[in-house]
Amino acid sequence: MSAGRGRFITFEGIDGSGKSTQARLLADKLRADGADVVLTREPGGSDGAEEIRQLLVEGEPGRWSPETEILLFTAARRDHLERVIEPALAAGKTVISDRFADSTRVYQGATRGDLTEVVNALHTLMIGREPDLTLIIDMDPDTALARGLSRGSGEDRFEDFGAGFQKALRNGFLSLAQTSDRFVVIDGNREVASVAKDVARVVRPL
Amino acid sequence: MSAGRGRFITFEGIDGSGKSTQARLLADKLRADGADVVLTREPGGSDGAEEIRQLLVEGEPGRWSPETEILLFTAARRDHLERVIEPALAAGKTVISDRFADSTRVYQGATRGDLTEVVNALHTLMIGREPDLTLIIDMDPDTALARGLSRGSGEDRFEDFGAGFQKALRNGFLSLAQTSDRFVVIDGNREVASVAKDVARVVRPL
Repeated sequence: MSAGRGRFITFEGIDGSGKSTQARLLADKLRADGADVVLTREPGGSDGAEEIRQLLVEGEPGRWSPETEILLFTAARRDHLERVIEPALAAGKTVISDRFADSTRVYQGATRGDLTEVVNALHTLMIGREPDLTLIIDMDPDTALARGLSRGSGEDRFEDFGAGFQKALRNGFLSLAQTSDRFVVIDGNREVASVAKDVARVVRPL
Repeated sequence: MSAGRGRFITFEGIDGSGKSTQARLLADKLRADGADVVLTREPGGSDGAEEIRQLLVEGEPGRWSPETEILLFTAARRDHLERVIEPALAAGKTVISDRFADSTRVYQGATRGDLTEVVNALHTLMIGREPDLTLIIDMDPDTALARGLSRGSGEDRFEDFGAGFQKALRNGFLSLAQTSDRFVVIDGNREVASVAKDVARVVRPL
């Protein structure tokens, strides 16, 4: 990595996989080690993107077509990238994001019609940036679904689609992991501390 | 035009050019002639698109980058197209829209950095549809600016940019009009009734 450029690490996985917890634990650990860390999330992560997030997570499931949804996610991501991620990386900080473009690839591209080409074309045109490292927290969908629903945040619309949908998502993430060396799949079906130890082991040598 | 497919007519021009008035007068006239007309507008025109419109017209000018703004306009347009325009055209209705994709081409593409290629690529990828006829109501920017500001709607953020910006927009619309036969430029620097007469003359033989 060139001097003055920070690391961009993302966490991906199905709802309830524990990725948000792992993102926070990694941020805590790197900060304890003296790193300057920006912990963020998608959809959202900047003021404008959080407003767009409200359009995405509120209201009826299916209120947007997959194509409109992809455009809104991309608009939110562009704002997040410009206002938060790129400035932090330019300042040499470590950016950890709970979800990024891979979520759109899997949720919209792999599971809601054959929109993979549209998702990829939009990403190339409007976003461009890929993470240096992406940790996929892999988990049994039935366990993850139970965890996700138990949170009751009311914001995870994707949970409404049920276990079959979660299984398709899991397969989407595992397939995506085969496409680039930046992905590392971590077994999330264990105690939080064990998963965190594996995460730390992967991140350290980056 | 093939049977069962309605006409798609758009009005374009700078703020204060009188295009909204002309769109309404044309809708009235075609309805009086017995046509089934859907009069709509952008940004907005469908429930979801109107919500996205709020993000675009409220708040500080410059709160979105040109790229994010283009994505939000395209998301709103996709929703408007799917929910309102395409169903009406499929039912054989005449759709009249106060602004459509040409506004994005001119406002973002021609005046806010060299984003024409991005605007065109996004349109091809996510929208595709072009109007059958586009009426550009051309007007002296100083007159238009005075009219626009006098409305005081608080929604026309573009007015904030002043007369120089309006002149650039006018030139953008006039340049765009050279690129396709679907454009007709109407002189808007006249009485409303005279302009409406010209509009009706152009629309009738379509």
